[in-house]
Amino acid sequence: MEKPAPTTTPIHALLARRWSPRAVDPDRPVKPETLQVLLEASRWAPSCFNEQPWRYLVFDGRNASALEAARSCLVDGNAWAKKSPVLLLSVARESFTHNNKPNRHAQHDVGLASENLVLQATELGLMTHQMAGFDAARARELFNIPEGFTPMAMIVVGYPGKLEDLPEPLREREKAPRTRKPASEWAFAGKWDVAFMP
Amino acid sequence: MEKPAPTTTPIHALLARRWSPRAVDPDRPVKPETLQVLLEASRWAPSCFNEQPWRYLVFDGRNASALEAARSCLVDGNAWAKKSPVLLLSVARESFTHNNKPNRHAQHDVGLASENLVLQATELGLMTHQMAGFDAARARELFNIPEGFTPMAMIVVGYPGKLEDLPEPLREREKAPRTRKPASEWAFAGKWDVAFMP
Repeated sequence: MEKPAPTTTPIHALLARRWSPRAVDPDRPVKPETLQVLLEASRWAPSCFNEQPWRYLVFDGRNASALEAARSCLVDGNAWAKKSPVLLLSVARESFTHNNKPNRHAQHDVGLASENLVLQATELGLMTHQMAGFDAARARELFNIPEGFTPMAMIVVGYPGKLEDLPEPLREREKAPRTRKPASEWAFAGKWDVAFMP
Repeated sequence: MEKPAPTTTPIHALLARRWSPRAVDPDRPVKPETLQVLLEASRWAPSCFNEQPWRYLVFDGRNASALEAARSCLVDGNAWAKKSPVLLLSVARESFTHNNKPNRHAQHDVGLASENLVLQATELGLMTHQMAGFDAARARELFNIPEGFTPMAMIVVGYPGKLEDLPEPLREREKAPRTRKPASEWAFAGKWDVAFMP
């Protein structure tokens, strides 16, 4: 199911096509080689001091117990995501490697990398859905995530599934139009709260 | 000057082409309509609860004093960026609009949006360079950025300039190969520090 963004002005098709569906095919695995391409895309994101503060934990069918453990971290509202054949967990390293001082851009830079990752997935015909709704403390314990690293998002990666396989309330949400605030509410010209006008 | 990422596996050309040059054409302005396209690309990034915590302050030639003020926030190491005809400042809203509770994904989600923005710029033949090196407290004061919002990155947006116009040490950096850590150092399979292998 395609749901291109109803943009006010044309943008690159890859950016417009990316969205966050919930219908995922539980029976079609994603090859490790394909996951490697997604990781390679994230690899070339920019970052402060080229620190590359992103880490990704990959849970796929090759390690069923780890995948099950990752699923067990999801909140009830994200139960639909347990069908995904792959979950990723993005993690931020909160300090710089070269001097151990706090990196205030770490989480921001993980976002830069993860956007690359989900766009590359879009290009390969995969769907992705990043989720804040998971038990980060549990994930830290289950997967040995050290102090100084912050779990950011669980990411569904899979091939598109069937709308009919979603439970009813989610089916409606899947079909609902994509919405965003108008840019005039958050893009300012030279000073806060002065709407940018082209 | 193009400097496509030397990837280990092919990725989408748009992602491979994006990089962070310093040579910017000081004499070629960026039309407001073009900046609007960049903002529209960021608009369709995903975010936790669809909060869209990103804000962008735009400094362009239409308000010379605001642009000069933005330039005055840059640290000495980023003096080269004062030549840019446009600066953007990305800002994160640290709480959710619907309940005012902290949004721990705010900065991460600004990263998602900014990556869309710089990729759209790449598509339009613009160069971008996100910078952590600026005086955030000064920016807050100069541009009336309220408490509860965190300035994240100053972003150069312009058309590519000439290598010869950069001072010598930067000229060498501009030509240096792009480098990243191997994915095996930060992509793990099922457990921390177990390298993901395709």
